[in-house]
This record gives sequence, C-alpha cells and structure tokens, in this order.
Amino acid sequence: MAHLMSTSCSIKISSSYRPCGQPLNQDRTVLPNSFTIKTSKSPFKRLVSKGQRAGRSCLVLATAAPVSKIVSANPRSGSDRSPNDSSKPQRVMVIGGDGYCGWATALHLSNKGYKVAIVDSLVRRLFDHQLGLDSLTPISSIHNRLRCWKAITGKTIELYIGDICDFEFLSETFNSFEPDVVVHFGEQRSAPYSMIDRSRAVFTQKNNVIGTLNVLFAIKEFREECHLVKLGTMGEYGTPNIDIEEGYITISHNGRTDTLPYPKQASSFYHLSKVHDSNNIAFTCKAWGIRATDLNQGVVYGVKTDETSMHEQLCNRLDYDGVFGTALNRFCVQAAVGHPLTVYGKGGQTRGYLDIRDTVQCVELAIANPAKPGEFRVFNQFTEQFSVNELAALVTKAGQKLGLDVQTISVPNPRVEAEEHYYNAKHTKLIELGLKPHLLSDSLLDSLLNFAIEFKDRVDTKQIMPSVSWKKIGVKPQTVPAN
Amino acid sequence: MAHLMSTSCSIKISSSYRPCGQPLNQDRTVLPNSFTIKTSKSPFKRLVSKGQRAGRSCLVLATAAPVSKIVSANPRSGSDRSPNDSSKPQRVMVIGGDGYCGWATALHLSNKGYKVAIVDSLVRRLFDHQLGLDSLTPISSIHNRLRCWKAITGKTIELYIGDICDFEFLSETFNSFEPDVVVHFGEQRSAPYSMIDRSRAVFTQKNNVIGTLNVLFAIKEFREECHLVKLGTMGEYGTPNIDIEEGYITISHNGRTDTLPYPKQASSFYHLSKVHDSNNIAFTCKAWGIRATDLNQGVVYGVKTDETSMHEQLCNRLDYDGVFGTALNRFCVQAAVGHPLTVYGKGGQTRGYLDIRDTVQCVELAIANPAKPGEFRVFNQFTEQFSVNELAALVTKAGQKLGLDVQTISVPNPRVEAEEHYYNAKHTKLIELGLKPHLLSDSLLDSLLNFAIEFKDRVDTKQIMPSVSWKKIGVKPQTVPAN
Repeated sequence: MAHLMSTSCSIKISSSYRPCGQPLNQDRTVLPNSFTIKTSKSPFKRLVSKGQRAGRSCLVLATAAPVSKIVSANPRSGSDRSPNDSSKPQRVMVIGGDGYCGWATALHLSNKGYKVAIVDSLVRRLFDHQLGLDSLTPISSIHNRLRCWKAITGKTIELYIGDICDFEFLSETFNSFEPDVVVHFGEQRSAPYSMIDRSRAVFTQKNNVIGTLNVLFAIKEFREECHLVKLGTMGEYGTPNIDIEEGYITISHNGRTDTLPYPKQASSFYHLSKVHDSNNIAFTCKAWGIRATDLNQGVVYGVKTDETSMHEQLCNRLDYDGVFGTALNRFCVQAAVGHPLTVYGKGGQTRGYLDIRDTVQCVELAIANPAKPGEFRVFNQFTEQFSVNELAALVTKAGQKLGLDVQTISVPNPRVEAEEHYYNAKHTKLIELGLKPHLLSDSLLDSLLNFAIEFKDRVDTKQIMPSVSWKKIGVKPQTVPAN
Repeated sequence: MAHLMSTSCSIKISSSYRPCGQPLNQDRTVLPNSFTIKTSKSPFKRLVSKGQRAGRSCLVLATAAPVSKIVSANPRSGSDRSPNDSSKPQRVMVIGGDGYCGWATALHLSNKGYKVAIVDSLVRRLFDHQLGLDSLTPISSIHNRLRCWKAITGKTIELYIGDICDFEFLSETFNSFEPDVVVHFGEQRSAPYSMIDRSRAVFTQKNNVIGTLNVLFAIKEFREECHLVKLGTMGEYGTPNIDIEEGYITISHNGRTDTLPYPKQASSFYHLSKVHDSNNIAFTCKAWGIRATDLNQGVVYGVKTDETSMHEQLCNRLDYDGVFGTALNRFCVQAAVGHPLTVYGKGGQTRGYLDIRDTVQCVELAIANPAKPGEFRVFNQFTEQFSVNELAALVTKAGQKLGLDVQTISVPNPRVEAEEHYYNAKHTKLIELGLKPHLLSDSLLDSLLNFAIEFKDRVDTKQIMPSVSWKKIGVKPQTVPAN
C-alpha cells in the first residue's frame, strides 16, 4: 500500500510535556524531551521508544525493555472490581488502545486495577491526515494522554508503538509486557475505508488478518494461557431472514443435528476481514487450545466514559464523517450544525447499538469471566436494536427539545445492503455475565447532542456526506481527500 | 516472508529449445534463446517476458504486449466440444497453470478449442527446491512444455509469468489476454505447507487472499462479463455431523426459514484461506455482479490425462511427499517401493476423491455452463467418498494383484482432525451438467500403481513420512528441508 509504506530509516522526534491542567491548544512547551524512534519498512512497524523518562508528576513508559521490575505507583487504587487474582493485577494488553473503543477501554481497565499496556501503530491518526478528516473532539497525543492519566490517577499505562503485522515488534511487546489478556482492537475498522479503492481493500484485509494471525502465534509461542478478547462485529452476520444467534446455531438437517458456526454474510471488505479473523481464531482454539472470546459488537455511540471525562486531555475521539462516522454519532453532529440527517436509502436498515460505556463494561466482563482453554466463545455485544429511521426520529425528537430544527433527508445508499429486512439478534450472554446496559434514552441523546453542540464550531460539513460507493470502488488509488 | 523476497533487480535467464522427441534428461541445447526478465520486489512478481520468438515448429508466447493480433495456428483443431460462441473460441486464463491441476486443465481446454493463457509465478517449483522435495515424475520447464504442446497439436498457449499479488502485473495480463473466463488455481494449495511455521502460514493466507482479491478487482475493472471459476476445497466444510450441501443450506429456525451459506469449519491455515476467498467472492458477486463458480474440490488422484499422456515433456507432476502429496497418490508410491502405507491415526477420516481426468472435465463443464451475472455458484467437485482405511485396503488389494507385498502402518496423526466421524457430502450439480466420473476401480489403481512402479527409482523415501505437525507449528522459520 504505497501511501503507507516508506523505506527503512531512523528518525528523531520531539515530545513535549504539557501539564494536565493546561489548555489543550496552548503551544507552550515545558520539559522538552526527545525520543529516539526506529522504524523498519513501514513508519508504523517499529516505533518502539527505546528510552523512558519520568516527569515530576507524570510517567510515560514507552519501552521495549523488560518492565517487570517497574511497579505501578498505585496499582489497585480506584478499583471497584478486582481482577481474578486479587494478589496480583492481571496484565492486559490493549492492541489499538489509541482508537475510539480502545482508548476508552484501556483507561477503564486501568482504573479498575488492571495493569494495562497499549499497543498501537497510531495509523488511525494518519488516516485522518490522508483523507482530510478530523475528530469532532480535539484529542491529545497518546503520549500526553498517558502522562495526564498518570498525573490524575497515579496509574501507569505502558505504551508500545508499532505494527502488530511486524512479528518481531509484536514478540518484543509480548516478552516485555507478558500479558495475561490481550484485548484486540488493532484493526482497520471502517467499512467505507475498506471500500475506497483496491489498495485500501487489500490493506484492510492484509492488516487485519495478518495482525490477528500474528497475535495468535504470539500467544501460542509466548503466553499460551493468555486469554484473547477479540473485537468482532455484528456486521459479520449480515441480515439473515432468521434469528441471529451468538456465534453458533444448532441445525437439524435430514434427520441429523449439529451445532455449527452461524453462517456469515458480511458486506464490505472490512466486515469480511472480521469473518476471516473469526474463522482463523476458531481454528487455533481447536488446534492449539487458545482461549478466545469474540465480541461481535454492534454500532457504538457516545464519547464520554467515566475515565475520559476526567480531563480534556483524556477526551475520546468522535467521528462524524462519511468514512469513520457511524450513524447515531453522525446524526447528532448533523443536528447540532443544522445539517439534515442523512438517511441512506429507505432507512429500514436495522442494527444493534450500544453506548461506549457498555463497550468498556463488556470487555471487562469478558476478561473477568475468561474463556476456557480451547474455547472459542462468541458474544453479541450490543444492547438495543434500531432502524436508521428510528434513530433519525429519536435524534429529531431530542433535538427539538433543545430548540434545534432537525430535518431528515434520504440520500442514495452508497452501500449494497437490504434496506428493509427482518432482524432479530440474540444478545443475552453478556447480560447473564452482569452487563447493566445504558439505554438510548432521551437524556442520553441530549448528552450526546449537547456534546455535539459544544464542539459544533469544529464541524467540517464537507465531511458529512457519504463519499465512498460500494459499487464504484475501483483499482485506481484515491489519492485526494474523499470529500 | 524472508525466504521468498528479494530486492528489486533485473536478471537475464537463458531458455533453450529442446525438440519434443528428445529425451527429457538429455542436456543438448538447440536454438538457444535468451529472455530478458524483470523482477520487482519479489522474484515472482514481475517475471513477464518482454519478447517473443517462434521456433520452427513450436511457438512460445511470453509477452505482456497486446496479443490480440496473434492468431492461433489452428484454434479449433482437436476440439470435440465447442465453446459457447462457435464463431470465436472463448479465451480462458488459467492462473496457476503450471501446477498439478492447472497444467492438466490448461492442456485439456486448449485441446478442446479454447484459447488458453497460463498465468503462473512458478513459485510451486521453488517450494520443492526449498523443502528438498521433487515430483515423482520428471517435469519439463513450462517453456518446454508449451513448445512441445505447440509442436504436437499446433495449438498455442500463451504464458504470463508473474505474481497475481502484484496488481500491476495482473492488470497487464488482463489487458493483454482479455479473458472471457478466469480459472483460478493460483494459490498455495498444501495444508501441511501452511502449517510448517508462522511465516508459511502468513504467506499462504496473504498470497491466497490478496491474489484472489486482485483477480476480483481485475474482473470488475477490465472484464466485468468474465466468468470466474475458482478452485475451492471440500476441506472448507470440515466434518459436520449433518449432510454437507453444495455451498448453501436451508435452515428453519424459530419459525422462520432462510437459505444461507453452508457453515465452514476449515482445519488448516490453507483451508481457512479458501474459506476467506469464498466469502470475499460471494460478496463481490452481490455487490458488483461478478459471476463466479466455486469448485469445492475433493482430493485429486492420478497423473495422466489424455493430453499429458501425449508426450513425456507434457507429463504432469505427481507429489508423494508429506507436504504436497495427497493420501492416494502417496499410498501408491509407498506400495511401489515397499514402504508401508502410512495411515494417520485411526484412519477413519473420510473425504471426497476424484480422478484428475474428472478435474479437467468439471472445469470444462463449469466454463461451458457459466454462472449468471451476480451469481455465486458452488459445486462440490468429487466423485466418490473413501475413508483413509478404505483407500489403504484398495491399494493393498491392487498391489497384491501386481505381486507387491503391501503393508499398512498407523502413524501418529500430525493433523488436528476427527479420526472417526459422519461424512455425507452432496455432489450432484456437476453430474447434472454432464460429468461422467472415472471411478476408483481396480484397473485405475493398477494404472496409478504401474505409474508409481515405473518411476520408483526416483522415490526419495525420506520425503514420505509426515514432517509437519498441526500442534507443534512455531514462530521460528523452518529454514532446513522438512525431512
């Protein structure tokens, strides 16, 4: 993928320390520090900081050296849920921990007393640059995020910057951090991104499939007891005309019966990559005894969690654009700036949704109740179903309460999908483990809407409309911003 | 994959012309000729011969220049089955046309009057070098094979040497040859190979998935009416406890009914790559209107077809080793050299089998009866089911008729698979299209056994035993021959 590759090089970058109380956009630099960073073939492959330094009140670990001797300043503070072994916190590696769900999860687990490391190539930030997109909310660098977290809570989150498709890098992170659990968000996660052009389609499948294969091999080789918690998607199932079960379905056929993997009908190269992952993981559970939980997640909405709300430098990203934005988040931003809500096609497309506060809760529940060795466990991770039209109606109603004049328009559907269909997906397993859902009430909408209004001056309305077509995708690289 | 990559370079190789009547192992060189060959990152990526030349009686085309003006010397001779349009032969691109099934298919289609081009990176030949393996039968270079074919039949098969993972190369082949049909054998096709080490596992999935994605994009971009005939495998289904249908199954569940993709349970990284391909192809049929036939092939046995029997330089490869050899072929070679037949585990593993003469027949039937635009059609391509124990018993019986003392031993199963299980797979669709199966009779066994006996001096018994373990696969590259 030409736009993501460079030749081998060694670069130096500067990192600056900004006190957590300091406004985000202020440029004053305090306690400058430089990191020596090595890259291999790709700028995202080996960004392992070789040094470490402590600020007066913040500590950032960005090292591939053994960290077992480094003791968190306050490993159990702020925890109201104990990891399984109360004498020693479980070590959780969050791959993709700088992203939307990953960041919220890493903070949540750290807050709950787990020992957390983030592994991330930061390529998601590059996608924004390349496509001319930006989060609605201003987000800090990962380095500043972690310094701030340390300053506020006293908790250290380790950081490994690199590409899990580079097995040498991944091996170093495993041998350094020695995870008990790997939470794997480290994938290209946008369906439209995967449908921009051939290059991005290939990148998405290669990145996601090879990255996950590498994680499986690393677990087998270095940490065979490690529990893999993999983020899948409800989109793997498509929209069958029968009830969707959680991963498996019992089929009686010609007088015989078996329980088999639920048939998948993914509808983008991204969703397909998740199906490929699921199949690969299931095989390694059977062949090698890997223990894995596949969280088939619905569409996530919201931006605040208990932890990201603690400080503006901990603020999560919120995508509203046509490539990375998901329906509900995008609708709220549209309502805030007076843009009509853009319903694709007939709007009967029904999916499962969940609040990002439930994402972090579900991951924690999966960790606290691990899969058995050899078990490939599938949970459908969402709390409520809505059609796109229902979402638009809810946002309209909530907007009216805030005095907004919310209009809805139908735009030609850029996707290939059924616009009116049966949809009934089971989602009881996480509830049985103790999930207490945040439901999409009017107050929640208000909160998300108020958030969108707070940052509405940052909205670039050119990003809103769909720019990627499932049918028009071609082989020519799209080298200009999508909008 | 370090052992398959090199830096950019430009090399010159010599190609020699050997009259078809000349013994294969004789080194006399007649009419020397040199090709200038360019490579990009990988030695297999851009091996496109830039020139072309005609021998007195043989013509080899190895060019990426437009070939539309080049008329086959005798495009319809030897044909007893007409392609759909009788006025103009259909143009069939056989990707992987230098391999076991691909070579037999390319010759068969050429003989039947189709205009054939072979696209191949020749990497299968490299695998033999790297692993210290060899075909039981001596095989000619692809260049000599095609010269011989031309000399005997007057028919030209075009040749494009390169890697379909290189989209620039693949684009050139599409725009040069303008296929009406693509028959896609161009994948790493060995389950044990994919289980040697992490590097080969990753190579197998990357090579197979990206190569197929590229083919789909090339069809969409350049030849949207082109019919894709993709070789899948019966191994995609695994061994469910219910009947295996052809690609789809109708499920009634909670009072509703739908016909869905048949659940897959592949059991090696190779088999998984085929499942990934199937899912990707199905999506593009739906989203782009691609017309595709997925041939879920059973285990192929035999070596001779009408065409490969015409001359020793046309002889097909026959693999009997623990990596590329399949059960029946390996058993016959073992019987020929007095090696005990190696049954893995209990031997109750049951699979579908077919003669290679039926492989070429099935592909021809799929081409002659194409899928409709947007249709993803799945045929189970095998003719009979046998357990490994049944195969061993058949080979023992046939060997005794030839005076051989055939013993059978059970060896620890290197795979993770059920050794006793229900198995009943449907395979009626190709029969309905007119397939006339060659059944595994005693005479056929004699023929395959006699063939093994003819070449028994070439057998390297060190290659026979399984050397790859599903459970022991590790991350360390295996850099020495497997045995």
